[in-house]
Amino acid sequence: MLHIEREIAEQPEILRRLLSEGSHTAKNIARAIREFDPAFVCIAARGTSDNAGRYAQYLMGIQANLAVALATPSVHTLYESPPNLSKALVIGISQSGQAADVLRVLTDARQQGALTVSITNNPESPMAQDAAYHLDLMAGEEISVAATKTYTAQLTAVAMLGAALVNRAELDDSLMHLPEFIAQTLETSGAVRERTERYRYMERFAVIGRGYNYCTAFEISLKIKELCYIIGEEYSEADFRHGPIAVIRPGFPVIVIAPGGKTQALVIDLLQKLNAQDAECIVIGSDETLQPYAQTFMRIPADIPEWLSPIAAVIPGQIFAMQLAQVKGYDIDQPRGLHKVTITE
Amino acid sequence: MLHIEREIAEQPEILRRLLSEGSHTAKNIARAIREFDPAFVCIAARGTSDNAGRYAQYLMGIQANLAVALATPSVHTLYESPPNLSKALVIGISQSGQAADVLRVLTDARQQGALTVSITNNPESPMAQDAAYHLDLMAGEEISVAATKTYTAQLTAVAMLGAALVNRAELDDSLMHLPEFIAQTLETSGAVRERTERYRYMERFAVIGRGYNYCTAFEISLKIKELCYIIGEEYSEADFRHGPIAVIRPGFPVIVIAPGGKTQALVIDLLQKLNAQDAECIVIGSDETLQPYAQTFMRIPADIPEWLSPIAAVIPGQIFAMQLAQVKGYDIDQPRGLHKVTITE
Repeated sequence: MLHIEREIAEQPEILRRLLSEGSHTAKNIARAIREFDPAFVCIAARGTSDNAGRYAQYLMGIQANLAVALATPSVHTLYESPPNLSKALVIGISQSGQAADVLRVLTDARQQGALTVSITNNPESPMAQDAAYHLDLMAGEEISVAATKTYTAQLTAVAMLGAALVNRAELDDSLMHLPEFIAQTLETSGAVRERTERYRYMERFAVIGRGYNYCTAFEISLKIKELCYIIGEEYSEADFRHGPIAVIRPGFPVIVIAPGGKTQALVIDLLQKLNAQDAECIVIGSDETLQPYAQTFMRIPADIPEWLSPIAAVIPGQIFAMQLAQVKGYDIDQPRGLHKVTITE
Repeated sequence: MLHIEREIAEQPEILRRLLSEGSHTAKNIARAIREFDPAFVCIAARGTSDNAGRYAQYLMGIQANLAVALATPSVHTLYESPPNLSKALVIGISQSGQAADVLRVLTDARQQGALTVSITNNPESPMAQDAAYHLDLMAGEEISVAATKTYTAQLTAVAMLGAALVNRAELDDSLMHLPEFIAQTLETSGAVRERTERYRYMERFAVIGRGYNYCTAFEISLKIKELCYIIGEEYSEADFRHGPIAVIRPGFPVIVIAPGGKTQALVIDLLQKLNAQDAECIVIGSDETLQPYAQTFMRIPADIPEWLSPIAAVIPGQIFAMQLAQVKGYDIDQPRGLHKVTITE
């Protein structure tokens, strides 16, 4: 069995552990945040972890009414002129906890008087040690170079912080059902395997998500690029209409994230446009009535609330990327040109 | 003559006008910003204008030590749960001034007590009218669907605001030389024309910029996609190493922005890696010693300061995109599937 295959399968169990054993810490951090009363949030991360930051932009924006900036680490490292973060909650996200540039943002922020939090999979790591608070993902070692379980754990950690900040019972209730939703998604994703041969010669693609699932578009795109060496792009449905839609030709594969909720009407309109242009639509959706728009339909649970849907919606994408790499005969656990820990300045 | 060709050529003149006639307004706005003393900046924009927002992240971060968030308009429009922007300077950027979702961010922010500024090419537009302050690009009507002169005018407007905020004589001096630098860039870019036939069958590409020129990577990528219908991707040099570098195969075209300054050492290291993988390197650079790394080298002035270099570095990219579309026989002023004003929710 591939490491990545096992790590994908472990996700329900890992989220269950994080939700129960991390709950106390998340509540503590939320208390500190309320006390600090930040003017805004700044998230520092790279690669997959940056996509968890994109989730936080929507989650903390919509649920906790906090404006969220994604840090520009080179302002700290290359230009050595850090912005004023003294009134910010600064959250560093990194699987390894070793990202040097992300650590630098945390350190600068702490010295300025910001409230700092790190989310990592290693409580002994520099980022875990440096931040005032640390939320441990407890996901176990991730051996595959392409991150899967630590990504969904990062999103869950962000969701836990958001829910603890808002403190509304319905959010906590939904969170408790999350491992079940993820287990269901893994089950229905079994069907993805049969479909991947169709994409053996796919040479480019786009992924489109909006709102909460903007991050899902980025993360699925990254998985396919990392594992299958295909060039692709991620867009919000709105930005896509502002120019890139011009690249769509008959047969062009577009992965559309359609989780229901507030973005549904716009997503349907986009699917109609893509169908009119004879694009190849691969839909990750909760609503079976979207099936006629799709050449390939990947199901996520119908009753998962939109704010938690990114944690489920990425999974068919993880499996698709893994399967496609297998169909292409690539080394999946050790993709060429990549290392598990990437240190950038 | 194509509209876009004329609009590209007009750039030195337009920036000269903006710098002289807009200077008073920029200084007024800077005074209001200092008085308001924002905890952070939030920029709302879509498409090309969003790339001007990316420039502002670095410019205002490095020069004025302000943390800059890029707004997530759907949090306002679709989810109707705007984040708290009451302590923010909120800047809306739009060529037409008609972007409904960007306007909504401005309106929400103003009602919350934020300081609002709009940067548009139409002083009668809703965004110009709604914001407390308006900086008029005075770029004249832009007829080509693909924005060129309004983009460099937006960057210049951001640079003017930044310089006025910091109020250091050397920044003002450099700004005054900008139209000259741009005129020089147009001259040296004449050579780009001879090189584009080589890329007639280019089917995918990546563009890499770092720091100040992260925006340049996004904008050149967008121009090529809009005009040539080729799928491509933009990256910061750091994010590129975190996964997407895996897509590079022999002959893969990578446009690298190499403006000198703080990013130079990292850019050279990246060029060496790309050369080792037999990638096709198209370098937009100020330093001729980089020429050996490049299959195609496009020159920008050697003495342009790094913080202003994005305004020059985009120009060879604009010309490359236009020329490549011509080589491919496409309709350049009216690319398929696009409209000059795109209204998204």
